Amino acid sequence: MRYNLTIKKTLFFPLHAFPNKEIVYRDINRYTYRRFYERLQRVASSLENIGARGAKIAFIDWNTHQYLEGMFAIPMMGSILHCVNLRLAPEEIVYTMRYVEDDFVVIRDEFLPLAEKLAPHVPSVKGWIVTGDDVDKVETSLKPVYIWEDLVKEGSSYDFPELDEHETAVVYFTSGTTGLPKAVHFSHRQVVMQCIINGLALSANESPARMSSADTIMHIPPFFHGMGWTFPYLATMLGMKQVLPGRYEPQVMLDLIKNEGVTFAGGVPVFLKMLIEHPEAEKYKDALSKFKFVCDGEHPQRVLFERAKQLGIKMIEAFGMSEGVGFTFAVLKDHMLDWDWERQVEYLNKAGLPAPFVEVRIVDDEGKEVPRDFQTMGEILIRSPGLTEGYWKNPEKTAESWDEEGWFHTGDLGVWDEEGYILILDRAKDVIKSGGEWISSVRLEGYILEHPAVSEAAVVAARSEKWSERPIAVVVPKPGMSVTEKEIIDFLMKNFVETGKMAKWWLPDRVFIVDEMPRTTVGKINKRAIREKYKDLVLP
Amino acid sequence: MRYNLTIKKTLFFPLHAFPNKEIVYRDINRYTYRRFYERLQRVASSLENIGARGAKIAFIDWNTHQYLEGMFAIPMMGSILHCVNLRLAPEEIVYTMRYVEDDFVVIRDEFLPLAEKLAPHVPSVKGWIVTGDDVDKVETSLKPVYIWEDLVKEGSSYDFPELDEHETAVVYFTSGTTGLPKAVHFSHRQVVMQCIINGLALSANESPARMSSADTIMHIPPFFHGMGWTFPYLATMLGMKQVLPGRYEPQVMLDLIKNEGVTFAGGVPVFLKMLIEHPEAEKYKDALSKFKFVCDGEHPQRVLFERAKQLGIKMIEAFGMSEGVGFTFAVLKDHMLDWDWERQVEYLNKAGLPAPFVEVRIVDDEGKEVPRDFQTMGEILIRSPGLTEGYWKNPEKTAESWDEEGWFHTGDLGVWDEEGYILILDRAKDVIKSGGEWISSVRLEGYILEHPAVSEAAVVAARSEKWSERPIAVVVPKPGMSVTEKEIIDFLMKNFVETGKMAKWWLPDRVFIVDEMPRTTVGKINKRAIREKYKDLVLP
Repeated sequence: MRYNLTIKKTLFFPLHAFPNKEIVYRDINRYTYRRFYERLQRVASSLENIGARGAKIAFIDWNTHQYLEGMFAIPMMGSILHCVNLRLAPEEIVYTMRYVEDDFVVIRDEFLPLAEKLAPHVPSVKGWIVTGDDVDKVETSLKPVYIWEDLVKEGSSYDFPELDEHETAVVYFTSGTTGLPKAVHFSHRQVVMQCIINGLALSANESPARMSSADTIMHIPPFFHGMGWTFPYLATMLGMKQVLPGRYEPQVMLDLIKNEGVTFAGGVPVFLKMLIEHPEAEKYKDALSKFKFVCDGEHPQRVLFERAKQLGIKMIEAFGMSEGVGFTFAVLKDHMLDWDWERQVEYLNKAGLPAPFVEVRIVDDEGKEVPRDFQTMGEILIRSPGLTEGYWKNPEKTAESWDEEGWFHTGDLGVWDEEGYILILDRAKDVIKSGGEWISSVRLEGYILEHPAVSEAAVVAARSEKWSERPIAVVVPKPGMSVTEKEIIDFLMKNFVETGKMAKWWLPDRVFIVDEMPRTTVGKINKRAIREKYKDLVLP
Repeated sequence: MRYNLTIKKTLFFPLHAFPNKEIVYRDINRYTYRRFYERLQRVASSLENIGARGAKIAFIDWNTHQYLEGMFAIPMMGSILHCVNLRLAPEEIVYTMRYVEDDFVVIRDEFLPLAEKLAPHVPSVKGWIVTGDDVDKVETSLKPVYIWEDLVKEGSSYDFPELDEHETAVVYFTSGTTGLPKAVHFSHRQVVMQCIINGLALSANESPARMSSADTIMHIPPFFHGMGWTFPYLATMLGMKQVLPGRYEPQVMLDLIKNEGVTFAGGVPVFLKMLIEHPEAEKYKDALSKFKFVCDGEHPQRVLFERAKQLGIKMIEAFGMSEGVGFTFAVLKDHMLDWDWERQVEYLNKAGLPAPFVEVRIVDDEGKEVPRDFQTMGEILIRSPGLTEGYWKNPEKTAESWDEEGWFHTGDLGVWDEEGYILILDRAKDVIKSGGEWISSVRLEGYILEHPAVSEAAVVAARSEKWSERPIAVVVPKPGMSVTEKEIIDFLMKNFVETGKMAKWWLPDRVFIVDEMPRTTVGKINKRAIREKYKDLVLP
């Protein structure tokens, strides 16, 4: 009898060892793992009663305890969970739901008006289930309508079936910065292997942001985002106390960090930035000095590490993608542990070392591995037991990104350093090719961000008649400060060009000062939108 | 394309992140992981040339770097490694080799006389390969004969094949304290899952003996023993520096701990005891104060924890068996971390909490789970992704120990405490049933060991005319000390019976003072031999 690595089995450890540890949703709900599991059983039995076993179930909610219940109960009963990106435009949401052919939709009460708009376009839906902080009765034209809490209340004990580990557990969509979002799907086994890879990489070392079962984790990234959906399974597998913040609100998060003793979180850099830049952040210094943050989804700039350090926050970078979540982690090696911080941060601020079992190659245009010289850029390829096997129902896109040896071509460009850490220099589509030479937008942004008045910077390619492409920069000044194009250029000249750190032809042709960066639905800076905005600009 | 969890993949992380970390065999050999891998390739290519791909290959050696190479190269090339218990009697070794039908035998030069005796009885063997510290030429009647170092020298680069994860990687035999040894076999996936289970259980916490990739591990238990063969794969997966001590010699081990900076080891209690009781142990106090020890295979007595603590050694108990290696680990929970040591050791000195993914039940004679009252004893059942699926080529014995739901019946008797930690009270066959009531030999031994002159104690059942069975004790005094039967009985009366800690009928009927305990081939106290010795004793 073969053992199946299924999501159900991540619950064995916490239910046995930590049945009374808590899962907390804001100041609205708190219960133990034991109670959590009872609710999983109850809601699953009710879902089965309404015909949702083996169904595809869309979930549209903030990071609430009800959503966490759905993340376990739905795949554990043999159904498929579709984590809907609620920040997509309604027509994009319709696209993803029609693509999955969702049978049921679980939706937070505040989104009912959206649901009513979607309903006529998703004929596969056989029922709507409403979550919310206080849902008694639901007034809606949707039908049939159920209430999540009623399903829990009316449910009974339930034996979750023994599933084949290769059955699909979760599907969600890439954020789609290049064309239509693509459906990424994971089997139970891939979810479990993600937990294991992330767990080993983050805990079996002596690095500053080390994770353990003694941590209290807050789930900051939305559950429809890569790291967002992995960490709840990982935290459960290790028996951590879990804190659910609902939607992203810095004040609420700071209070939760303090009041619930949160010590760990992951997310894109802007989530940490907003906490750190909150006007009252200093007041939370005691709590933040125990807080660790794993930065994923986007290369965090050095200044963010410095600001984090001032508050006592321990921070590392990591690299993953929707297609596989955890690839590399910037944990320190043994011999770096007694280095001073200035030297450590050079490594903490890289994408990091491949996790156990993850294979990484960086290859040039001919598929040859590049040397570990920190200079030669190539495309990053990945093989991992936590990787999806391809895009769901899309053999064409799958064939574009996977080769016949199982290597996933990430489309990210990076270099190796001599210690085997990756630095990601660009998305292939973001790289700037000026006069046949590559300019790394990520490195150039880093230089601009060292200007004391700059809060955020994004560098993209603009069309140039002579050079084909030239870099332009978009800059957000720090609150209450101002900066001019000339000041930025002068700063770069003086500190980087004249000191020999940067070639002169890397200087951006234009610097635009703006109030705010456009962002993707998962909080990354949206470079496609910036390129779009300046598409008519033609440089000499 | 599905990802196969195979042994090859435990090497990705160390080869990438720590190619220059060392693997050290005494003061005889030291090389890096990079060189280790080159040697794996070379030896595998030569083994293939002599027809050993897909073969069953027996290994008879101490814990040397050559054996470590065999543990990886052999299964990685698609052959099966048979770890021979070299402490078995020659006829038992023949039995195990005939059972496996070994095609090749790798044998250390000092055992060649043994090999020559075995050879006529194992006709399946097509070749003999000799390891050793300095093997130039081999004088033997065996043929054909190869030399391991020649195979390495003559070998070339080699692409280890992509194997199915369910292929058999390793086979070895239970120590056979009850009848003929049984063949335990593990697939590649089960080996990998063992690494993962042990790795997560030992690293993702804040417990005293926590393991990380920054540790230097010494492989004390012989590789033919459960923990012995798991930890090398685990240490490799995490990229630890590894130290191979050859055969067990306390002086050599203490020197290696000091000179190589060893911080971690596992093993049966007697291994630690012999280090601690070495006359020069105090001289190694600095090095030992960084040393962590996971005690497996036998319940260590409380006094061992106390002696370890005096030297600064951090120690925890764990529970595994040949059939599955890592089941439970006595790591501390978060709320115990600031307890004083006296209170902590009550938990450190239990078999511990089930590791992630390991399911444990303790059931009474009717198969019902016993309450967590620390009193009600039952048999321990296990399900785990690292468990063998049964005894090799032995459906009958498999059916005796596995039920149709995949539960392995360990034959160990234990209780749960209120925190979910197991305490193992006896092997089913060691338990004493006096007048219909159970006496735990393990608990009674613990009481006797509190006597200041006692070094070791074993309690077994002897026949009684009136009570069916009665306990007798065998006691080894501490070096240079003496103790009498009457002193032991008086001590138990005064300290345990009169204080109400122990029922009077638990007092052993006889206490025998001996110079030495009989031990099994893996270093456990051999209770079968003790029972055998006193089998003609009949108590009133």
